[in-house]
Amino acid sequence: ISNIQPAEISANPVLDISGLNFIDLMVRQGNIENPPKTPLVPGFECSGIVEGPGDNAKGFEIGDRVMAFVNYSAWGEVVCTPMEFVYKIPDDMGFAEAAAFPMNFVTAYMMLFEVANLREGMSVLLHSAGGGVALLPDVLGRISPDGVDIVLDCLCGENTGKGLGLLKPLGTYILYGSSNMVTGETKSFFTFAKSWWQVEKVNPIKLYEENKVIAGFSLLNLLFKQGGAAQVKVVMDKLISLYKQKKIKPLVDSLWALEEVKEAMQRIHDRGNIGKLILDVEKSPTPLMANDSTETSEAGEEEEDHEGDNGNKERMPFIQ
Amino acid sequence: ISNIQPAEISANPVLDISGLNFIDLMVRQGNIENPPKTPLVPGFECSGIVEGPGDNAKGFEIGDRVMAFVNYSAWGEVVCTPMEFVYKIPDDMGFAEAAAFPMNFVTAYMMLFEVANLREGMSVLLHSAGGGVALLPDVLGRISPDGVDIVLDCLCGENTGKGLGLLKPLGTYILYGSSNMVTGETKSFFTFAKSWWQVEKVNPIKLYEENKVIAGFSLLNLLFKQGGAAQVKVVMDKLISLYKQKKIKPLVDSLWALEEVKEAMQRIHDRGNIGKLILDVEKSPTPLMANDSTETSEAGEEEEDHEGDNGNKERMPFIQ
Repeated sequence: ISNIQPAEISANPVLDISGLNFIDLMVRQGNIENPPKTPLVPGFECSGIVEGPGDNAKGFEIGDRVMAFVNYSAWGEVVCTPMEFVYKIPDDMGFAEAAAFPMNFVTAYMMLFEVANLREGMSVLLHSAGGGVALLPDVLGRISPDGVDIVLDCLCGENTGKGLGLLKPLGTYILYGSSNMVTGETKSFFTFAKSWWQVEKVNPIKLYEENKVIAGFSLLNLLFKQGGAAQVKVVMDKLISLYKQKKIKPLVDSLWALEEVKEAMQRIHDRGNIGKLILDVEKSPTPLMANDSTETSEAGEEEEDHEGDNGNKERMPFIQ
Repeated sequence: ISNIQPAEISANPVLDISGLNFIDLMVRQGNIENPPKTPLVPGFECSGIVEGPGDNAKGFEIGDRVMAFVNYSAWGEVVCTPMEFVYKIPDDMGFAEAAAFPMNFVTAYMMLFEVANLREGMSVLLHSAGGGVALLPDVLGRISPDGVDIVLDCLCGENTGKGLGLLKPLGTYILYGSSNMVTGETKSFFTFAKSWWQVEKVNPIKLYEENKVIAGFSLLNLLFKQGGAAQVKVVMDKLISLYKQKKIKPLVDSLWALEEVKEAMQRIHDRGNIGKLILDVEKSPTPLMANDSTETSEAGEEEEDHEGDNGNKERMPFIQ
């Protein structure tokens, strides 16, 4: 990102809210290649208020409500990221929803409509349903005896061959993460290396004979290593438009204080979440669970609760 | 295909015309798995006139001009294939064009628009340009320093890794054939086995890290082993519609008599052809090359020449 002027988008501490992703657990466990040197602030997406736009940050002003991709440091009270990764939050979207929005929706959309070619009548199988990506409202995995059209697999390793075997002809298998790398409490480097490198390889001739497609998708690599910000912007604009039409809505599982990050990560680790976990730097250290009315509510219904500087427990309709 | 009543679509000997494909050379060399027992009649696509539709061949009548996929035997004077593989020829399409139409266009269309996701502004790299698939008018391969969006590779083996390396992020590599299997004059089984089985395998993690897609496409397997006739029909109907709108047109390289099949195959083998070679059971044994006016002509221009029972050399505007 060296050739792009940072926009110095930064978040008002009161409102800095960040989405927790599996990749954050991998970072904590050292399960990624070339992490930045410690001390580091984790986090790859956040929402907040523009505190000081950079010289080239045209279109943004102090006080704008924004959500952003960040190459680490999204958990910080103040976040600085290039303008190309920053998006204005729709008026009826709260900060917690906004912190849950970018990674999950862009990953799901690009996998289903750009990598695969999802059309009406197709079936999608989600491994590890329960994580954020599994929760797109129109995407429910079903397995028919004929197989499925698309397999989304965040479990790398010995499941690859099995996933390929479930595909219909012309079906697409997409490996988009590696959540099984964080299933062990005390994962050694050796165990990690095994699951990462000794994954089952694929013979292209087999793909030819069976008419199958295998793909990998890493949004972070696309954004931060492969110059894909412009491609992602097209998708984000579509998704924001779909949100405004009330066709999609991020599902928030629970809000956590920074001090509770260990417990929050354990909840993801144990796959206890339905929806996204959100870190809120202002929240007091007690998890607030989403109540039933939140899970079935319509987009925009709680907008009054999200905004403003009122107390934490009043900001969102979460019960203890 | 056992559950489908054969339609007994058969060709009038005078007009039976068949497209020659690389797969026919592989069959001749024994380079396919589980070929039918000899004696066998090669050929996977043909055009002709319906001689005797089967009991369930609704919609077809004696005398209908048709083109068809056939699971072997397309070079026969009379061809029998299930109705689901048979299509009526548009009025302005000649029999030679029709024999050149199904495999190349369906393969190219499905690879570009169903396996990959070709959109405006994308680049396509064609290995082995010159064969039928390379000749879709709107598909011209260009390599930019940034890489290409789609690689269509009919050369299996050591080129796979190189092809993957040429892809942009989110790019798709499609292996759709194996023409390098027929490059040796006297290819031994051992050499064949090497190129077929020792192909470079792909690590899904590498696809994940690089955001890449690898796919295989075999139209014959889709049609004859995987029950894909209905999927292919949707595509054929679109392609026939595009032909009628004069947006696509098959390119015929030359017409050959059955007695000249050895020379015709040598021409494909040597990659001397630009466009499709056609076998015509009625033609006298001298190759007739397409002249310049044919190569630049519009669809339908030669329709008068294609039809009827007039002499061979008058049937098409080919010069000696």
